Amino acid sequence: MTGSISGKAAIAGIGATEFSKESGRSEMCLAAECVLAALEDAGIDPAEVDGIATYTMDNNAEIEVFRNIGGKELKFFSRTHYGGGAACAPVMHAAMAVSAGVANVVICYRAMNERSAYRFGRGVQKGIPDMTAAVSLSWYIPYGLVTPASWAAMTATRYMAEYGAVSEDFGRVSVAARKFASTNPNAWFYEKPITLEDHQNSRLIVEPLHLLDCCMESDGAVAVVVTEAERARDLKQKPVVIRGAAQGSCDDQQMMTSFYRENIAWLSEAALVGNQLYEQAGITPDDINTAIIYDHFTPYVLQQLEAYGFCKEGEAKDFIKDGHIEMGGSLPINTHGGQLGEAYIHGMNGIAEGARQVRGTSANQVEHVEHVLVTAGTGVPTSGLILGTL
Amino acid sequence: MTGSISGKAAIAGIGATEFSKESGRSEMCLAAECVLAALEDAGIDPAEVDGIATYTMDNNAEIEVFRNIGGKELKFFSRTHYGGGAACAPVMHAAMAVSAGVANVVICYRAMNERSAYRFGRGVQKGIPDMTAAVSLSWYIPYGLVTPASWAAMTATRYMAEYGAVSEDFGRVSVAARKFASTNPNAWFYEKPITLEDHQNSRLIVEPLHLLDCCMESDGAVAVVVTEAERARDLKQKPVVIRGAAQGSCDDQQMMTSFYRENIAWLSEAALVGNQLYEQAGITPDDINTAIIYDHFTPYVLQQLEAYGFCKEGEAKDFIKDGHIEMGGSLPINTHGGQLGEAYIHGMNGIAEGARQVRGTSANQVEHVEHVLVTAGTGVPTSGLILGTL
Repeated sequence: MTGSISGKAAIAGIGATEFSKESGRSEMCLAAECVLAALEDAGIDPAEVDGIATYTMDNNAEIEVFRNIGGKELKFFSRTHYGGGAACAPVMHAAMAVSAGVANVVICYRAMNERSAYRFGRGVQKGIPDMTAAVSLSWYIPYGLVTPASWAAMTATRYMAEYGAVSEDFGRVSVAARKFASTNPNAWFYEKPITLEDHQNSRLIVEPLHLLDCCMESDGAVAVVVTEAERARDLKQKPVVIRGAAQGSCDDQQMMTSFYRENIAWLSEAALVGNQLYEQAGITPDDINTAIIYDHFTPYVLQQLEAYGFCKEGEAKDFIKDGHIEMGGSLPINTHGGQLGEAYIHGMNGIAEGARQVRGTSANQVEHVEHVLVTAGTGVPTSGLILGTL
Repeated sequence: MTGSISGKAAIAGIGATEFSKESGRSEMCLAAECVLAALEDAGIDPAEVDGIATYTMDNNAEIEVFRNIGGKELKFFSRTHYGGGAACAPVMHAAMAVSAGVANVVICYRAMNERSAYRFGRGVQKGIPDMTAAVSLSWYIPYGLVTPASWAAMTATRYMAEYGAVSEDFGRVSVAARKFASTNPNAWFYEKPITLEDHQNSRLIVEPLHLLDCCMESDGAVAVVVTEAERARDLKQKPVVIRGAAQGSCDDQQMMTSFYRENIAWLSEAALVGNQLYEQAGITPDDINTAIIYDHFTPYVLQQLEAYGFCKEGEAKDFIKDGHIEMGGSLPINTHGGQLGEAYIHGMNGIAEGARQVRGTSANQVEHVEHVLVTAGTGVPTSGLILGTL
């Protein structure tokens, strides 16, 4: 019979470049830098790397990254589609490769100059990635829905109508993230907290989304190194065991535009991922001490808090208002500052922060962390991880 | 400790469209057709599909294929880079997903109108896929090396110089493939065998490659369904167990242009894949009864016969001349007619033929098949499978 992915593999190293608006070097350079930093962190020789997993959207060819770090024999490589929805999937695939015995040291990376080389938030204004996306999008483009913000606004509007959430409810997510970012020296918005008034006064991008509801465009790169949990025990850092790893898509999902679903206020794919994760790890949402909730747009954070079982449908606004997501609350989230406050590295920086929370080395360390949930982009097929202590 | 991928999963269904030069319908339509055919072949309801694996080069978005077949909950999806080198990797990833318990029914597909919608053999004449490829290729493009045939010709020329192989040695691969195709009703070149003289008289594409050294450009699609070996036992078809599954890249590999290697006549990545496969399956090349050797260009078939251990370096020309690769020989290869004779579906049609050989249902059935080797595109990072009886 089949086995389980839980507990077999661990994140043994994490590495990153600085986060900026203009890195001044190629994406390949960023990729090699973050990978070498992660290997150094783990205490693993680059020549030992035999697996690579990344996003289809990453511009850096596996074999070129491999050559640049001095790789010898590559035995596993995979990519995952759907932008930030992929975020946790490379780590899942790495865990699968390690537990199937096809690779021993798998690097997962995301490296991009999405601010200086291209403007990520422009969406499909400069072209549509493929014909099937074109067919889906053709129903929306004539109405001006051409950017991620415009697609997210549709879902947010419906969520507000359904549950009575208002702009301030979204704003509190941003304020909490910027508070954590303000005490994280690696965050772009280090020492730059905001108030709810700042959020309300920031310009509208697409109603109801204000500028401060949208994540940044950033240059930078983050990598993690995955190896056997048993081996990780003997390496330089405290092992971060992969207790759960899952992907999900369901219910007639389309790329950011699943508007024909019966209920667009509910993230069925996030719920599917959550259910798999809790089952694999043998825990419930109550056992999660802190979480990295993918914050491309603030309304999706509310929907994810519900889909991952931290509160009931429509109740995330109250959960947040009651302070649960802040330090000292029942579920501090995005302690690195999130993609609203640290940088937008397509979720890979959130995985690194999840690992730091398990290690006990976050700039905003939560006490007594045993389990961290990390989620990925929503509105698209998504993925998630539960990271834990050995 | 980590497990092994061997024996956990099986190919339970295979499906394909017709192979043509102009399918007359979209690639998405082809994808849905071949997937539904494979599920029907297996006797599995499309609603049970929970995993999808394909090539990065496939134009059909996973979630759109999933919607079109009536999928419900998708729990695993991956893509593999490097064109035909990916061929066996989706099946490997599917086997990993099944053995890790993250998915139960994984479909692997490749669907393309690479003859009627675009001319695949044009290579990078119409544009370069990404910046890292551009950097590698910039050393060769000024010399006119812009097509797969031109890159393959470089390697073939070196191989000829190194081992004294001549054009006729390559031609015999083509003649053998077309002989098998001539008795396979699904092959494009059904009932159209060729002679060595036809090969020699066919026009030069890039010296030393004649037209009949190059695979076809085809429209068509092929899918396989992977599930647990235990479950496959109870399904409609004889199970085709995945005894080995591996990927490989090494030695400063670049995309089709690894010309700075010390020895370009030797396919180190194919040897790396072969070594992993034989170790996983616990067998040697002598135990392989028939093989699907990826035949994008005939010279690569000689190199693969050597790298996969069927003969010594430089001796493939004699191995072939002695009739070993034909019916009744020690290793009949490409019994479907290969991509020279059946169709060029980026290797996925070879996996289907490998499965048929294990089932005992090939149009050119080899007797007493226990183990089939299937290889993937070379010149690029590659992959391979050993398929076997339960």
